[in-house]
Amino acid sequence: MTTVNRYLSEDRYFDPDHSQRKVALELYASLDDLPLVCPHGHVDPRLFADPNFSFGSPTELLIIPDHYIFRMLYSQGIALEDLGVPRADGGPVETDHRKIWQIFAENIHLFRGTPSGIWLRDELHSVFGVQEKLSGRNAQMIYDQIDAKLKSPDFGPRRLYERFNIEVLCTTDTATDTLEHHQAIHSSEWNGSILPTFRPDNVVNIDTINWIDHIAALEETSGVAVTDYGSFIEALENRRAFFLENGAKATDHAALTAYTKRLGNAEAETIFQRALKGTTTGEDAYQFTGHMLMEMARMSTEDGLVMQLHVGAYRNHNAIIFDQFGPDKGADIPIATEFTRSLQPLLFAYGNHPDFTLILFNLDETTYARELAPLAGHYPALKIGPPWWFHDSLNGINRYFDQVIETAGLYNTAGFNDDTRAYPSIPARHDVWRRASANWVAGLTVRGIVDEEDAYSMVRALAYDLAKETYNL
Amino acid sequence: MTTVNRYLSEDRYFDPDHSQRKVALELYASLDDLPLVCPHGHVDPRLFADPNFSFGSPTELLIIPDHYIFRMLYSQGIALEDLGVPRADGGPVETDHRKIWQIFAENIHLFRGTPSGIWLRDELHSVFGVQEKLSGRNAQMIYDQIDAKLKSPDFGPRRLYERFNIEVLCTTDTATDTLEHHQAIHSSEWNGSILPTFRPDNVVNIDTINWIDHIAALEETSGVAVTDYGSFIEALENRRAFFLENGAKATDHAALTAYTKRLGNAEAETIFQRALKGTTTGEDAYQFTGHMLMEMARMSTEDGLVMQLHVGAYRNHNAIIFDQFGPDKGADIPIATEFTRSLQPLLFAYGNHPDFTLILFNLDETTYARELAPLAGHYPALKIGPPWWFHDSLNGINRYFDQVIETAGLYNTAGFNDDTRAYPSIPARHDVWRRASANWVAGLTVRGIVDEEDAYSMVRALAYDLAKETYNL
Amino acid sequence: MTTVNRYLSEDRYFDPDHSQRKVALELYASLDDLPLVCPHGHVDPRLFADPNFSFGSPTELLIIPDHYIFRMLYSQGIALEDLGVPRADGGPVETDHRKIWQIFAENIHLFRGTPSGIWLRDELHSVFGVQEKLSGRNAQMIYDQIDAKLKSPDFGPRRLYERFNIEVLCTTDTATDTLEHHQAIHSSEWNGSILPTFRPDNVVNIDTINWIDHIAALEETSGVAVTDYGSFIEALENRRAFFLENGAKATDHAALTAYTKRLGNAEAETIFQRALKGTTTGEDAYQFTGHMLMEMARMSTEDGLVMQLHVGAYRNHNAIIFDQFGPDKGADIPIATEFTRSLQPLLFAYGNHPDFTLILFNLDETTYARELAPLAGHYPALKIGPPWWFHDSLNGINRYFDQVIETAGLYNTAGFNDDTRAYPSIPARHDVWRRASANWVAGLTVRGIVDEEDAYSMVRALAYDLAKETYNL
Repeated sequence: MTTVNRYLSEDRYFDPDHSQRKVALELYASLDDLPLVCPHGHVDPRLFADPNFSFGSPTELLIIPDHYIFRMLYSQGIALEDLGVPRADGGPVETDHRKIWQIFAENIHLFRGTPSGIWLRDELHSVFGVQEKLSGRNAQMIYDQIDAKLKSPDFGPRRLYERFNIEVLCTTDTATDTLEHHQAIHSSEWNGSILPTFRPDNVVNIDTINWIDHIAALEETSGVAVTDYGSFIEALENRRAFFLENGAKATDHAALTAYTKRLGNAEAETIFQRALKGTTTGEDAYQFTGHMLMEMARMSTEDGLVMQLHVGAYRNHNAIIFDQFGPDKGADIPIATEFTRSLQPLLFAYGNHPDFTLILFNLDETTYARELAPLAGHYPALKIGPPWWFHDSLNGINRYFDQVIETAGLYNTAGFNDDTRAYPSIPARHDVWRRASANWVAGLTVRGIVDEEDAYSMVRALAYDLAKETYNL
Repeated sequence: MTTVNRYLSEDRYFDPDHSQRKVALELYASLDDLPLVCPHGHVDPRLFADPNFSFGSPTELLIIPDHYIFRMLYSQGIALEDLGVPRADGGPVETDHRKIWQIFAENIHLFRGTPSGIWLRDELHSVFGVQEKLSGRNAQMIYDQIDAKLKSPDFGPRRLYERFNIEVLCTTDTATDTLEHHQAIHSSEWNGSILPTFRPDNVVNIDTINWIDHIAALEETSGVAVTDYGSFIEALENRRAFFLENGAKATDHAALTAYTKRLGNAEAETIFQRALKGTTTGEDAYQFTGHMLMEMARMSTEDGLVMQLHVGAYRNHNAIIFDQFGPDKGADIPIATEFTRSLQPLLFAYGNHPDFTLILFNLDETTYARELAPLAGHYPALKIGPPWWFHDSLNGINRYFDQVIETAGLYNTAGFNDDTRAYPSIPARHDVWRRASANWVAGLTVRGIVDEEDAYSMVRALAYDLAKETYNL
Repeated sequence: MTTVNRYLSEDRYFDPDHSQRKVALELYASLDDLPLVCPHGHVDPRLFADPNFSFGSPTELLIIPDHYIFRMLYSQGIALEDLGVPRADGGPVETDHRKIWQIFAENIHLFRGTPSGIWLRDELHSVFGVQEKLSGRNAQMIYDQIDAKLKSPDFGPRRLYERFNIEVLCTTDTATDTLEHHQAIHSSEWNGSILPTFRPDNVVNIDTINWIDHIAALEETSGVAVTDYGSFIEALENRRAFFLENGAKATDHAALTAYTKRLGNAEAETIFQRALKGTTTGEDAYQFTGHMLMEMARMSTEDGLVMQLHVGAYRNHNAIIFDQFGPDKGADIPIATEFTRSLQPLLFAYGNHPDFTLILFNLDETTYARELAPLAGHYPALKIGPPWWFHDSLNGINRYFDQVIETAGLYNTAGFNDDTRAYPSIPARHDVWRRASANWVAGLTVRGIVDEEDAYSMVRALAYDLAKETYNL
C-alpha cells in the first residue's frame, strides 16, 4: 500500500538537478518561521466569528463547496446532483456524504498532475494526518479519519489559524456587507487578524442580476438615498469609509475586460438613470464599469485603500449549469485580455500618483511578458498580482516568474495570495508557492544570475515581505 | 563518418538529468508491447486496397509529396520545380529523382532541431536500415539503400502495417467518397483495420472552390437530389449513415475560426439558395460554416460519430504558390484563435450531452491554458486533441502537457494521433510522442507530483488508452 | 564582502545539469575568437567620428541616458528629476552625479534577475574592472574606479571597438541625416567599420510630430522639392541611393502594427496632400504607413537594401512623462500583434522575390510559433530577427529558440543584434546571447536531437554567420 509520506518528500516540486535542489531546499528552509500573510481570499468571516463553528462532514468541507473538485468530476460525466451540489430550485441531490466521498475517491486519478490533486494530498496529510494515498478501497476509512478530526475542538477555525501560523487573513465582502462578523471577531477575546476587503462589483456593474436590490441594500447600509449618480458616489464613499474603520486595507474589482474611461458627469448620470429604470444596455454596462474603475482609482488615491482588479473571466459560460445550480460551479472560462490600451486612461490619470497602488490579476498569461511586466516596470502605482486561479499551479507559477520578473523586476510584484474559500487548504497553497519560489530562485543561483545573499532576500520577499508591503499590512 | 545510431541512443529526447532520464526510460520501456492506435491521419486507403502497392522511388516517397520537407527547402530559395513538385498547369519540373535527392541531402542542415529532421532520421534508420548520417557526400549511396528496400515485398504497406504493430488506422475521406478502397480492404483476406472518417468540408463550407461540383457528387453518392437546405441535410445524414456502415468512428471538420451559431431554417435556406446560384458572400460562408458545425454536432449526438474540429489554419497564404502548384504546399499559416465565446453556442446546445464527444485541435498555443483546458475541464463532451501540425514536435508536446494538464487533467485529452499522409513516418511520430510523454511523466515523478504507480498508468493512457477510448476504437 | 567574479563564473547562465553544462562550455569556448557583428543598433556615430570623444561621468554613461535603468527606478517611485534625466522644458534636475549614482546603487536590488542587472554587472567587471558587487556602501568607491577608467585614453570609443573585437557596427540614422559623421569616420585614418542604416519613419509615418519639418529636411538633403506623392517617392529613392553610397546595408522601419496594403496612386496622392496641409486623420496615417511598407519593400527589391521591420511598440504610453521628459523614457509598452493577415499583401507582392530580405522584429512572443515561424519557414524573403527589447534576456532568448526553430529552422533566423545605444554594454549583450545559444544547442545535443558536429556549426551560425549573411556584411 502506498503511503502518502513516501512521496511527500522534503524536496518535492523542486528541480531534479542535484545542485539546484540542494539550494532550493536551503532557501525553502529559511522560510520556515515566517507566518502566512493572506491579503486576498474568500474565506467566510463567520468561521472566526463563531467560536464553535464546525466544518461539517469531510464531504461538506472538501467536495460540495469546492468547484475546483466537482468541475473535474463533472467533466467526466458525473452529475453534480450525485456530488451533493445544491440545486437552485432546491430539488433533490445526493445527501449520503459517504457515497459522494466514495465517488470522489474512485475518481481521484482525474486529479493526477493538477494543483487540486497536490493541495488535497498535502491537506489530507498535513492537516488531517492521513497516511495513505486515497483510493476507492480505503475511501471510507479515510473518511472516518477526517471525520474524527473534524469533530475535535483542535479543528475549529480559530485553532487552525494558530496552527497554520497565519499573521493576517483578508476576506472579500460586498460593499453592502454590515461587517457584523468582522466586528464580532474584533470584539471577541480572540487575537487573530481577520480584515474585510471592499468589493463593490454588484453595485458598480449595473448589469448585475437584481442590481436594483443591491442598490436598495447600499442605501440601507450607507444611509444615503441613491437617487442619482451623485448620491451613488456618495454612498460608495460612505461605505469605503466604513470598511476603512473596520480595518480594510484594500478594495477588489472584477471586470470582463480592463477597459477604463472616464465619462462626463452628464453621461454617467444618464446611464445611471437608465439603470435605475431597469433599461440598461450592454454598452451602458460596459461604459459604466470602465468609468467606475476610474472612480474607484480616484477614491483610492484619496482614502489609501489598495485597489485590486481581476480581469478576464467569462462567468457562467455553461448556461444550463447556471440555471440549475447558480454561479461558481466551475464554468467560468478565461478570455484573451488587453491591458496596454485599455488601462491607458486610468494609468494616465492615476498611474504616477505616489499614494496609489493598483494590483492586476488576470487569466491570460500572454499579457505577462507583453503588457503587464512592461507596464509595472514603469508606472509607480502598478503591481502585478500572483498567478490567478487556473494559473496558481506549479507550471503557472514558473511561467509567471519566467515571464514577469525579467522585465518588471521582483519588486513590482505583489507576493502571494491564496484566493481561496477552502480554509484548510491555505497552508498547502502557500507551501506550493514557497517551494516554487525557492526552486525558481535556486535556478537563478545555480546559473550565476543572482548570488546567495540576494537569493535569501528574494525568497523572503516572495513569501512574506512583498504581500505585507503591497497591501500595507 | 558519423553513424546515425551513435546518436539514436535509447534515451534520446529525454531530459539530461540522470534521475529523470532513468525513470523516463523505464516508463518508455513499459510501452514497448503496446500497438499503435492511429485515430486520425491522411494515409491514402489505396495503399492497403492494392496488395501490390509500391511507394515508387525514395524521392517520390520522402520528398515530392511532403510539404514539411519542401517548404523548408523553398524558404531557402530552392524552386519547387527543382524538387519535382508537380505544377498545376502540368508544366515541366525536375524528373531526375536522384538529382532532387542530392539537393535535399545537401540541404539537410536546414532541418537541424526540427521535427521533420527527427522523424526523417529515425525513419531512415528504423524503417530503411540506414546507418550513416545523410549528407551531400553519401546521398546517392543512401538513395540506393532505400530504393532497394522499397523494391522488396517486405516494404509493401500491408507488411509495414504489421511490422509497425498498428492496431487500427483511420483515414480521412470526403463526404462524397465511395469508400471503394475501404470496402476492397474489408473484403480482402487481409486483417488490418483501416477505417474511414467522414470529412464534409467541401460540401458544408460553401466558399469551397467548385462547391457546386461537390454538391453534384453529394447528390450522386447519396441518391438525394439537393435542391434546398432540407435535402442538403438529408443527403449529409445519408452519407454519415453510409460511413457508419463502413466502419467510421468519427467525423472531421476544418474551419478558419471556431465560430458557431445556429441559423433559423429560413435563414439557412436563403443562404443555401444563394450558394446554389453561385452568389455566396464571405459573410454567408462564415455564417453557414458556423451553423453547419451546430448541425454536425447535432447529428453526432444522434449517430454517435465522434466530432473532430481543426481550427485556425489560414490556407494557401502564398497566392503565387497556390496558383502555380495548388493547395497543401507548405503555405498554410496559423492565425490567433478564440474559443470561449465562439464555441459557447455549440457547447450550450450539446456540451452537456452524455453521448457526444467533440475533439478540438488548433494552432494557437495561447488557447491551451487560457481557453481549451478550462473548457475541457468542465464540459463533459469536450476533449482536447494532441498538439497539431507545427506543434507536433518535442517542444510543442512539452508546452501542451505543461499548459493543458494542470487545468484539464490528463483524462480530458484525446491521446495522440499522427495526422500524417507519410505512412512510413508513423512509427517515428508515435515514438516521439511516447518519449516526450514518458519524459514529462518522469518529470512529475522525480518532482514528487505523481508516484510511480500513477506514472505507469499515465504513460499507458497517453500512448494507448486515451486514443482508443475517445474514438470508441 | 562579495566579489563580483565569485559569481561571474565561466559557466554562468548554463543549465545546472552537469552533462549539458559541459557541452555548453565547449560550444561557447569555440566562439572565443569570433568577432562581434553588430548589424542593428543605436550607437551614435559621433563616438567614432571624434577621436577624442569622452563618455563623461559614470552617471552620464550608465544612468542618465539608459531608459532600461531609470524606468525601473521610476517604477519604484524615484522621480526622474532626481536621476538627472533632462526635462523637456529645461527645468532643474539633479546635477550631482555622485548623488544620482548613490541612489542607483542603493536600489540595485531592483535589478535582481533582470537583463539590465546582468549586463551591468558584466560591464562593470569586464569593461571597468570592478571587483565588488555594487551596493550603497561601496557606491562612491566604485564611482571613482569607473571615473578613473573613463578618463583614460584606453576608454575612447575607437579603442574599445578594438578591445571589444567588433568587426562591423551599423548605426540607425534618419532618412534626412547628412551622414557627416559616417563620412568623417570613413575619411579618417581609423579602420573601424561603422555603417549607416536608412530609417525613414519620421517622413513615411505622416502622423509624426512636426512631420512637415522632416519633409523640409528631406527636401534639403535630397535636393527634391516634395510637392506631391511622386516627388516624395523620388526624394526617398534619392536618399536610399545616398545611404547606399555611404555603405548602408539595410533600412529600418517601425510601425505600431504589421498592416500592409498598397494604395492606388490617386489615393496615395490624396492622403499625401492632406498630410502636406496638416489635415491628416488617424486612418490616413494607418493606411499610408501600410502603403509605404509596400513601397519600401519594392525599393529593397530594386536597390538590395535589407528591410528591417519593428512592430508592436505603443510609444509614449505615459503622456505625463512624455510631456515632461520627451520620448524614450521607458514608457513604450507592447501590444498584441498580428502578422498572418497583415503581411499577406506585402508577402504576396515580394515574399517570393529572390533579391529581397525582410527581417521581422516584434514584442508579442505569441507570434513566434503561431505566425512568424510558419511564415519564415515558407517565404524565401522572410527572416526572423532576434528577440527584441524586453525579450532580449535569458528567458526571452530561450523562449525564442524553443518556439521559433522547430518550425522556421535555424537558417531562417537573422542571428543576433544588440540594438543598443549603450556602447560599452555591447560585449555583455553578445555574451549573454552566445551563452544562451551554446546552452540551448547543448540541450539539443545531450538530448540526442543534434550531434556535436552540427552543434558546433549551429552555435557559430548563431554567433556570427547568420548576422553576416542576412545583412550582406
